[in-house]
Amino acid sequence: MSLDPSSFDSSPRLSSRMASLRSSAIRDLLTLTARPEVISLAGGLPATELVPRERIAEAAHRALADPRSVQYGETSGWAPLRETVAAREGVKVGRSIDPAEVVVTHGSQQALSLLAQVLLDPGDTVVVEEPGYTGALQVFRTAQAALVPVALDADGMDTAALEQALREGLRPKLVHTVSNFHNPRGVVLSAERRVHLAALADEYGFWIIEDDPYGELWFDAPAPAPVAAHSDRVIRLSSGSKTLAPALRIGWLHGDRRVCEAVELLKQGADLCGSSLTQQIATELLGDAAWLDGHLATVRAAYAGRAHALISSLEAAFGERISHATVHGGMFCWIEFADGTDTTRLLDTAVGHDVAFVPGGAFGVASAHPHAARLCFATYDGAVLAEGVDRLRAAHSAHRSGTVIGA
Amino acid sequence: MSLDPSSFDSSPRLSSRMASLRSSAIRDLLTLTARPEVISLAGGLPATELVPRERIAEAAHRALADPRSVQYGETSGWAPLRETVAAREGVKVGRSIDPAEVVVTHGSQQALSLLAQVLLDPGDTVVVEEPGYTGALQVFRTAQAALVPVALDADGMDTAALEQALREGLRPKLVHTVSNFHNPRGVVLSAERRVHLAALADEYGFWIIEDDPYGELWFDAPAPAPVAAHSDRVIRLSSGSKTLAPALRIGWLHGDRRVCEAVELLKQGADLCGSSLTQQIATELLGDAAWLDGHLATVRAAYAGRAHALISSLEAAFGERISHATVHGGMFCWIEFADGTDTTRLLDTAVGHDVAFVPGGAFGVASAHPHAARLCFATYDGAVLAEGVDRLRAAHSAHRSGTVIGA
Repeated sequence: MSLDPSSFDSSPRLSSRMASLRSSAIRDLLTLTARPEVISLAGGLPATELVPRERIAEAAHRALADPRSVQYGETSGWAPLRETVAAREGVKVGRSIDPAEVVVTHGSQQALSLLAQVLLDPGDTVVVEEPGYTGALQVFRTAQAALVPVALDADGMDTAALEQALREGLRPKLVHTVSNFHNPRGVVLSAERRVHLAALADEYGFWIIEDDPYGELWFDAPAPAPVAAHSDRVIRLSSGSKTLAPALRIGWLHGDRRVCEAVELLKQGADLCGSSLTQQIATELLGDAAWLDGHLATVRAAYAGRAHALISSLEAAFGERISHATVHGGMFCWIEFADGTDTTRLLDTAVGHDVAFVPGGAFGVASAHPHAARLCFATYDGAVLAEGVDRLRAAHSAHRSGTVIGA
Repeated sequence: MSLDPSSFDSSPRLSSRMASLRSSAIRDLLTLTARPEVISLAGGLPATELVPRERIAEAAHRALADPRSVQYGETSGWAPLRETVAAREGVKVGRSIDPAEVVVTHGSQQALSLLAQVLLDPGDTVVVEEPGYTGALQVFRTAQAALVPVALDADGMDTAALEQALREGLRPKLVHTVSNFHNPRGVVLSAERRVHLAALADEYGFWIIEDDPYGELWFDAPAPAPVAAHSDRVIRLSSGSKTLAPALRIGWLHGDRRVCEAVELLKQGADLCGSSLTQQIATELLGDAAWLDGHLATVRAAYAGRAHALISSLEAAFGERISHATVHGGMFCWIEFADGTDTTRLLDTAVGHDVAFVPGGAFGVASAHPHAARLCFATYDGAVLAEGVDRLRAAHSAHRSGTVIGA
């Protein structure tokens, strides 16, 4: 066979979108800190010992008595799970939700990914929080959206700043918010701002993705009613990953029926359907309200204690050299060094001291958050957290004095 | 607040890609035929009673004794599962495979979906089989690829026709083939054509996706060595859905390391990671060679018997009015009516007779396959298949005579 060599490409390429993608800093860090001797405050891992493994094993045993637990299932999710989610979410938003307006996804990350494809064309404007959840930023960047950051303060997204930008002509296709116990900032969007944000969506005609994996993890009192209680332009996401087990890979979205149908259509091509087995397990656990209430109370109390332990250790170790947001729930504490410490550089030293965290820059859109860090308090008990802070203090001292361990 | 109503869109839209997508005909049919009285030869459901539920329950019990079974896992898959898959696939392709060149996916459908995003830009040319697997066609259409069909015959894809098109200037970015026990045609790509196709990929510089969910389901003899044995431009896909259980949602791909890394990067945003629980279950089952060999022998014998039962019933019922491909494995039998029957219209009548199949048109790219149908023989035993064919014969008679049941 003869060919003009210039007429073909002998080395097949990847798509052009791959050139612009970068790996999630958090995921790369998880690889970096996989050594067992590292105390990783970096990952967002729920406490393994609080995951109800025995209850999951019992539910798995019962599910596997049903032949349907091993077969393909409906793309939009196991019907009884959609009903359970609709009932629970209906209580939160204060109105009845039709199970047809619920789609079960492979964790809420899949909901984000499918929604980006359903709602966004390349070049569309997406308002995100600054700092923002890296998994959402990655999805919107993959969708080639134009990201416009809006600052967070102690009451969550600054909706007055958003309104000002809208008045000046900003026309987002959607606004993404982690309304409860923000990742990475830990803050809660205030009740007033929820009403305000919903009103802006109605007035300016944008979608809101209310991304709420942490809402059940409150310490003293539940967060205010969801943004979704105030507008039907809200697609609300949540998950069993932080309350039941990450490995079930059960997330969900609910909202506008057209959006649900479009998500289902894309999910057919994305992965056909979720696991009937893990969905049946989740249905049993989420449907057993007495057990779930007790389980959640245990997790809340443990996480509240861990947050307190972490913050006490940080205050004892660093005093005025750091500030931190008050933590009312969730899994994360956001700290800022007042002494000019560059947290990306500090991380290098910290890993040498067998402790890890996520530098603020990983969550940045327009700002690099160079002196900030996200610490996860959920994974370890107080004693390990205290040891982690000791190591962080030693790393910080070494970093400030220019000593590099292991160099 | 005052606003110029023309300056904003008060009804948020979906993305433009949603306008061009259509639901998979197969998925819609599954909904249509969910009534329990319908004998559905339409779905591609493995025999539920042959799924090793007890073995899965034992493996689940053992997995859940390990705390890692409930936690987040690596995006590319549970390391021991990647090792098990690499070892098994290495035997098939006749060379050692590095586990780093394996990515575990949420069924092989997710592998297809991620590969389309990794490899394709809008407008890229993709060669597909005519008729082709609808789940692949849907993914490539979502990626806005230009589909170029190549005909199938009893030896699979007509690689001589492909070569002719390449000589005339066709420059595909990738070629998709279901090499073993084709869906929907049931045919096997011949050994000679595998070598030929691989050589064309090397010569013309395109990727091949060798999509092989059915290869283990041979009746008399295994299929020839995979296309991936002959070129490193092949990304090979397979799955535990047809051999273990659909609900584990365990698929995998292996091939070029750059492609694997790009798939992993996109999977971070798509769903973070698979289920540690179902991956650990699959690892135990795929790693227990003695048990697996026996299990697969049972499934092969059962499916061979069912294929024989279906074809015997069809021949008795329809005689010369239909032709069918010889079936050597897999789950599907492709039939063509010689009497001009329009199978899309026949389906309407058939559903009224409580039997369903997939009309050829669902698999068409440039051709409508108006007289063809795909029948799945895997789901039911021979007696039910015979009853299904009886109903199909009655529906065919009613259709031909213009009688419409229930009209």
